[in-house]
Formats: sequence, structure tokens, C-alpha cells
Amino acid sequence: MRTIRVGLIGLGTVGSGVVEILQRHSAHFRTRAGVDLVLERCADRDPARAAALGIGPESFTTDAADIIGDPAIDVVVELIGGTGAAREVVLDALKAGKAVVTANKALMATHGREVMDTAAEHGVDVLFEASVGGGIPIINPLKHSLVSNEIQAVYGIVNGTTNYMLTRMAEDGLDYDTALAEAQERGFAEADPTADVDGLDAAAKIAILASIAFNSRVTFADVPAEGIRSITPGDIAYARETGYEIKLVAIARRVDGGVDARVQPTMIRTDHPLAKVNGVYNAIYVIGDAVGETMFFGEGAGSLPAASAVVGDIIEAARHIQSGCAGLVGCTCSEELPVRDIADLETAYYVRLHVADEPGVLASVAGIFAEHRVSLASVIQRHVEDGAAEIVWITHRAAERDARAALDRIAALDVVHGIGSVLRVEEL
Amino acid sequence: MRTIRVGLIGLGTVGSGVVEILQRHSAHFRTRAGVDLVLERCADRDPARAAALGIGPESFTTDAADIIGDPAIDVVVELIGGTGAAREVVLDALKAGKAVVTANKALMATHGREVMDTAAEHGVDVLFEASVGGGIPIINPLKHSLVSNEIQAVYGIVNGTTNYMLTRMAEDGLDYDTALAEAQERGFAEADPTADVDGLDAAAKIAILASIAFNSRVTFADVPAEGIRSITPGDIAYARETGYEIKLVAIARRVDGGVDARVQPTMIRTDHPLAKVNGVYNAIYVIGDAVGETMFFGEGAGSLPAASAVVGDIIEAARHIQSGCAGLVGCTCSEELPVRDIADLETAYYVRLHVADEPGVLASVAGIFAEHRVSLASVIQRHVEDGAAEIVWITHRAAERDARAALDRIAALDVVHGIGSVLRVEEL
Repeated sequence: MRTIRVGLIGLGTVGSGVVEILQRHSAHFRTRAGVDLVLERCADRDPARAAALGIGPESFTTDAADIIGDPAIDVVVELIGGTGAAREVVLDALKAGKAVVTANKALMATHGREVMDTAAEHGVDVLFEASVGGGIPIINPLKHSLVSNEIQAVYGIVNGTTNYMLTRMAEDGLDYDTALAEAQERGFAEADPTADVDGLDAAAKIAILASIAFNSRVTFADVPAEGIRSITPGDIAYARETGYEIKLVAIARRVDGGVDARVQPTMIRTDHPLAKVNGVYNAIYVIGDAVGETMFFGEGAGSLPAASAVVGDIIEAARHIQSGCAGLVGCTCSEELPVRDIADLETAYYVRLHVADEPGVLASVAGIFAEHRVSLASVIQRHVEDGAAEIVWITHRAAERDARAALDRIAALDVVHGIGSVLRVEEL
Repeated sequence: MRTIRVGLIGLGTVGSGVVEILQRHSAHFRTRAGVDLVLERCADRDPARAAALGIGPESFTTDAADIIGDPAIDVVVELIGGTGAAREVVLDALKAGKAVVTANKALMATHGREVMDTAAEHGVDVLFEASVGGGIPIINPLKHSLVSNEIQAVYGIVNGTTNYMLTRMAEDGLDYDTALAEAQERGFAEADPTADVDGLDAAAKIAILASIAFNSRVTFADVPAEGIRSITPGDIAYARETGYEIKLVAIARRVDGGVDARVQPTMIRTDHPLAKVNGVYNAIYVIGDAVGETMFFGEGAGSLPAASAVVGDIIEAARHIQSGCAGLVGCTCSEELPVRDIADLETAYYVRLHVADEPGVLASVAGIFAEHRVSLASVIQRHVEDGAAEIVWITHRAAERDARAALDRIAALDVVHGIGSVLRVEEL
């Protein structure tokens, strides 16, 4: 059994989990998986992190280039994150003929083609299971067991922070700010929560899944993202009264001549399996023409769950190196389905408006919706305080461009004080 | 790209699904998966089946040996089922140096070691994703993405027939016989439902999953199975009142010094994700030391879902043949954890007794439980009809051998007319 030497760059949350698993299970991997893994060298800017993990100075460097340049190393694990240094590290490692394992969603969603092409040129593996859904196996199933399918749709709850917040808002009536503060306190949200609450993290992840599911490169920039900042406990209560839950859903669907990819706070029916995915859990719902409806559920973040996927990929790369079949399954983007302009989409809407509490407001707004061919399924007006009311509209399916045009005009009305929330209502 | 020639033996439900997928998607597989698959030849006892699928006589035989003996064929797909002819076909194909793809749970649960050893000897793949959970990827994730984990437990709802019946009983109050008749009418249950309703089908499937999860061979014969024949709508209603659903759960747990594997109707908490898996859907819940809790959900049976897994395996085998890395991941049973005697287990019980409606019965039964160290959490007695009552007991955790000894004595009491149901109550 040939020893496979691993170089690990980045000893943060996920990196320390990888070290822990390798320390705990390397002997098991020899017997159970037939691979002899050695953690040859680790790199991080902070030597204290290595010391805390029991990594001696002889196995540590502050310079990632020491790992890329080490001819003994077979597999480079990139856990720096982002698209700057990480991109250089990944490309250099591939060019040096090393397999790369990464958890870097931003990199794969932005520079996926360059990374995959470089791996193919050099005949090595690049594996990135941990970039989506933490420990949940989803990229491997899409590229292997489900490859027999034409995938119709992928719906993901792929951001644990926002799902935790929405769950707390739904279960205990917390408002957005309190839910965010609690998530930050419990370590589920960063000090700057933008990437999570504005749907950017989810957009990167669905870009990766869409690329694989539809064999067509979809990048982060292709995915319009809306977040959860405007959602109130009132929206959630209203949704529940009508049989829906509000989730931040990353959507990728095969549509006429293209791919519909987007991240939006979405009302989904209470009895849909995704509606029951709560807290920091993630789930990815995949619909294929043969398999039908499937779902993959688990912890979407955290040190050990993400490290589970990273080490699974390390073992996979090691098996391929041992067997001389590196690069077994590379880039699968053999087609070029275009990403459809979101304005071309059709969906139903939930719109909550702050309005003046005076006669005729409902009629004016309804009139504008009608002029833009947006037909209404229900409307409820609620008095909020002296002179102010809220109106919640649920529309039938309408073209996004029509709904937007209507909302632009509605927002400009004197009697409309503001648009509270706009949610899509999806029958998944 | 080398053409990979497939021989398909068995054109029943799953076989016809495989033909359909190959006819529909072979061109896609060339571009998307990089494999050129040709369905070279099919075998079945009934030529009419081939004709119905548009398979011409030149590509059809009634003799499986024609396929095994055809040197042009690279991959043999065994969809005969059972442990008789199927075993010969699989072993002969492997010995002839062909990769084998099978959906045969009985074969893998009974002769798994022989099949895996033969494949290893001849350096070829044997893949069997479809043997558990229909189209749900679960064997591949356990052998690949999750291989970094020490698996603690696998809990499966892996029999769609019984899950459909229990769902109908729970949702609409059907009794067992009506639910079974309906399942038969809708094609979800066979004329002889024994394998499903007595838990034998689920036992074979959990034997396969346990073998992989714990790296130790567990066979069908090792798995005690209890079915759902004794369950009444009353049991389900009682369970729901106390916050539980009743599911037929296939359980495999890593316990002190061994493996706990069994199939039993089980009360699980209503808020557990498995409790929400309804109808013909299946789900497998996997707990690993790094990944935490994960679940794989989907259609557990049916022509196309099972064929999705079979064709996924064919593509995998084809990739391995093309890359010269057949047999990449073979048998993973590197350990020999013993299967624990079920009498050694500890669990809580739900026991429904038919008793005489007279004073002292409850006291006598309670006395026997106490003598066998089975402590009681709750008891409810209900008058049923003149002279007859039902008593439902929920116990605290107790040793199976103690509970059984107590139940044997209780059943022998004159005032006990019969034991209605015995369910395990599990905190998964």
C-alpha cells in the first residue's frame, strides 16, 4: 500500500476538524478504506493554531508555497477560502501534479472552469464535496449514483445561518435582529453576516450544484440572490396560516432552453420535506427523470461535518492515486445551457406593503397589478397604527418582469410608505 | 472512447426501466459522463417482454449463459432476483472477468462475502446500489463521501409497502387488512406480502447497510425481524397521543463490542425526520462521528427509481473499465464485529394486552413486570366490550431477555386473552 502524503493549507474551523479526523482514524483508513494517509505538512499564518492541534514545528510552515513545492506531497487540501490566495494555491498545486481537495465554494462558483480545466490538463483530481452542504454527500451522488438521470431541479436549503434564524423566528416569534444576534452569539453567524443573510453564500452553492446537475457552467455572478433581511415574524405567521413555511431556498431548475438559478426567500408548502428542515440543518432536494424526488439532509456547516466531506475526498483522491486513475471524473459541463434572465421567470408572489390607512389605497394598488397582468389570489389589509396599515397580497403566477414593473409603480404611490417583503410562492 | 457493452439479464419491472433509461439517455451518457454504453444483449424467460421493449431477436436470448459467455460483453446486469439462478449468474459473470451490477438484496445479504471475494479475485467491480432504497444513493455515499466517519448507527425506513400501509393506517384510520388490500390493488404489495409485512425485505437491506457501515459482514440470517401484522389503528392513535409515530424501522447500531441489527415496528418521536417519511418513500438515517446526523430520502421502489441506481452503477463500472481501475472499491468488511444477541439489548417497550375486564388483572401483570426488573413508565386500561379490556403498557428501558421472560409469563395468565402488539420505543 503506497503512502499518500497530505498537505493541509488553512488550520481554521474546517482545517482543525480535518486534523482531528486524520489523527483519530488514519489507522482505520488503512484497514477499512485501503489507503495509508499521512498528514505530511500543514500551513497557516498562525503557528499557534498548529501548536494547539499538536502539530510539531517540523510539520508546519507559514508559507503555503512550501507545501505546493514539496515533491513528497500527493494531495493538497485548500482550506483558506475566498478567491485570492486560494485560487493561486489550488492552481499551483494542480500544475504541480497534485490532487486538490477544497471546501471553497467561492472559488468553485467563480473560477470553477479554470480549476477543472487545469486539473484535467494535469491529469489530477480536484474534489470539492465540502463546498456545498457541509458533510452532506451531494456532489458525489450527482456525479455518480444519479448520473443516469436528466436532473429537472435542485432545491437547496444550503445556508445554516439563515435557516437557524428563520426557524427561531417561526418557532419563537423572534424578530430578525434578535434572531441574528442570537445566531452570532451561538457562533452560527459571523460579525458581518452579509454573505449569509443576503443569500450570497447560498448563491455560490447553487451555482456549483446547477453546473453539475445541468452539465452547464453556472457561476456565482449568474445567480440573482435575495436575502432574508426584510422578513418579519408577521410574514412567517401569515405564511403558516395559509399552509406555507418561509425558507431561504436556492433554486436551480431546467427550464425551456436554459437554467433558472436564483436564491430567494420562498414560501413552500408546509408538507414539503424541505419545509421541515429546521435549525442549522441543510437539505438538498433533487428531482431527476428516473429517480423521481430525493433529498439529502444533514449538518451544513461546522468543523467536523465539513471535515467529514473533506476527508472523504482525500480518501477518494488517495484511492485514485493508488490505482492510477486520477482524474476519473472531471468537469461534467459538456453543455452550454444559458442561465435564463430572471425577468423571464414566472412565479407567484407574496407582497407585503406599508400603506396609508385611508380609503382607496387597496383599489389603487390592485389597479396597478391589473394593468401589469398580475392577477391576485388573495389580499388582506390590517390596521397597524394611526394612519398606517399593512396590505398582504398573494398573486397567481405572473411574469417576473410584470410583477417588478407593477411593484416599481406601486412603490412610487404617495399612499404607499414602503414595500415590506416580496416573497416567491413556489410549488416545488 | 471505448464502447462498453452491457448484457442485461431479467426484463421485469427494474429491467424494463433500465432499458428505458439506456434508450433515452445513451447519447447523453457519452457527452455528460464520458462513457459509450451499448445494450448489447438481453435475456429473459419471456421473449414477449423483449418485444414489448423494442429489443429485436438478434439482441435477445432466453439463456443467461449466452450473455455470460459472450466475450464482447463488459458489464452483466443481474435483475433476476433471489439466491438461486441469480447467484450462479453473478458468480459466473465475475469469473468470466465481467463487471456485475445487481439490484439483488437477497443475494448480497446472503452470499455477499462470496460475491465480493469472487469479484476481488477476478479484479472486477460488483456494484449493488439498487439493492437498498431503490434510487436513493446510500451505498455509494457510505463507501465514498462518508468513509471518513466511524458510523454509529443506520436507521432505515427501507420497505415502501409497509410504510405505505402504516401511513394509510395513521392518516385515514384504515385497519391492517384494508391497508394491505389497498397496497395490493395499487401494486405496492405482492399477492403474498410475507417478505414485506414480516420485515424480511427490510432485514436483507439493513444487513447490507450494516456490513458496509461497520466494516463487518452482517447477513440476512443475523437480523431478527418482526413485522407489522399485529399493528392496529389504535396502536397508532395511542402512539400519536404520546408524541410518537409507528414505523417499521431497520436498525443497525454500533454497540459495545458488536453490532445491534434488527427490524421492528418502532415508536419514534414525531419530530424525528424519519417520522415524517410517509407513503412509499424510503429514507436512511446515518449517524457518523464526524458528519453527525444525515438522511437520504427518496423513492425506495418502482421501475425507474431502481433503474436509476442500476444505470448509475453501469456508468460507474464503465468508467472504471475505461480507466483501467476496475475493482477500485471492493469489499470493505475488514473487521469482524459480532452481531449482538437481541436478548442482550436494552430498549423501552409498548405492550398492548387483551385481558379480562375484572379486578386484579392490572396488579398481576404489573407484578410480573416488576419481578423481571421491567419498570413501567405508564399504563392505560380501556374497556373494550363486556368482560374484555385492553391494557397498554409503556416501560422504561429494560433488557430484552427480561421483557421477554415477563411477557411469556404474562401471556400464560388465565386473565390475559392475548398479547396484541409489542413495539420498541426508540430515542433515535
